[in-house]
Amino acid sequence: MRNIEVCFSPELIHLHELQGKIVVVVDIFRATSTMIAALANGIEEISTFSDLEECREMKDQGYLIAGERNGQTVEGFDLGNSPVAFLKKDYSGQKLAMTTTNGTLAISKSSAADEILIGAFPNLSATITYLQKQKKDVLIHCAGWKGRFNLEDSLYAGALVKSLESSHEADEDGALAMKSLFEKEGHQMKAYLSKASHAKRLQNHGIEADIDFCLTLDLYELVGKVENEKVRAI
Amino acid sequence: MRNIEVCFSPELIHLHELQGKIVVVVDIFRATSTMIAALANGIEEISTFSDLEECREMKDQGYLIAGERNGQTVEGFDLGNSPVAFLKKDYSGQKLAMTTTNGTLAISKSSAADEILIGAFPNLSATITYLQKQKKDVLIHCAGWKGRFNLEDSLYAGALVKSLESSHEADEDGALAMKSLFEKEGHQMKAYLSKASHAKRLQNHGIEADIDFCLTLDLYELVGKVENEKVRAI
Repeated sequence: MRNIEVCFSPELIHLHELQGKIVVVVDIFRATSTMIAALANGIEEISTFSDLEECREMKDQGYLIAGERNGQTVEGFDLGNSPVAFLKKDYSGQKLAMTTTNGTLAISKSSAADEILIGAFPNLSATITYLQKQKKDVLIHCAGWKGRFNLEDSLYAGALVKSLESSHEADEDGALAMKSLFEKEGHQMKAYLSKASHAKRLQNHGIEADIDFCLTLDLYELVGKVENEKVRAI
Repeated sequence: MRNIEVCFSPELIHLHELQGKIVVVVDIFRATSTMIAALANGIEEISTFSDLEECREMKDQGYLIAGERNGQTVEGFDLGNSPVAFLKKDYSGQKLAMTTTNGTLAISKSSAADEILIGAFPNLSATITYLQKQKKDVLIHCAGWKGRFNLEDSLYAGALVKSLESSHEADEDGALAMKSLFEKEGHQMKAYLSKASHAKRLQNHGIEADIDFCLTLDLYELVGKVENEKVRAI
């Protein structure tokens, strides 16, 4: 039986062995959810940047550029970090450059893995099906929030551990704990998350529709995969 | 209402504000449980050392010295890291020097806090009563295992968050998650922990009696507090 484990922060990822594993990077609010929405609506490839100005420069290379600071779309950028914004038209054939902090860091710190996937609830089942077909151990790398544990990424980790229990053994402490957490709270994720000060912060930014989208299961059949530092649908 | 939050590893503690707070350091298997057992059986004060030889030198100053490496009492040491060993006689008036890795690190990294307590299940209620009387926010600092999240420290965190819900608001993600985890698994801690590879490792060291002790609630009325780098009962 393959194994599954959970890392709660990019600041702890050096304590985990990545080689030979599939790492699923997850930043539910909202980077990885936005990536999946973008890919589902035609975006061909996504490059991620922690630096705003590096991202801006991609515009000259024909990329759509997306980024927010303090909850507002950056001036001169085509889009913010809202997944829902990508649902409004067809972006077929276009390339996207996104600036995110937690998500970009988690992806770059996963580079020693055999494969890197992008995790989100709207394509959870597709990701599960893909992972079950591979013969590799899985590590869920939660982007967290400024290096700290966060609830939404952890609930996703729990959902994935639970869904893979027939193929991937969860005897690692983080995986066991998140499976229990999802078993207890997974049926009422939005109500549960609303107790958190972090979620309250997000609600103040008026992104209720984004939150609903980010917590919706199985809208898409695609899997998001990082290859050569670009995220693509497979 | 006061606040309560949870930090899962000494490697993440720099992300938390400690000033003005009471930090409860917890290393259930077995450092903090052993400290509480030692204090309950007469030990007057405990000094902790990450370095084995520094600990050994305390013998010349009249300290009892306690330490294990690879599950065995260190040669020349009076005791190992077993809490149960302290229950066998009265150590009144004696001073103890202990060498631990995770626990010592968590204590030293908590030094910016207003107060530092030592958390363990055998004195959970006494610690709760003490915390309820203070007018300070609480941070639970899990020692973890080699920097990683661990289940037993997290369950203790959940028990403390749950017990303080009438006086301390848990809107921080770690506190919320651990409260849910304890609500789901707290009634069967030993069976739940036995699923973890870490717990299996401990069982191989033949410390079943220690595990039972470490998971037993409310044997003692004392609170363990760090003052001037020594742990004492208050």
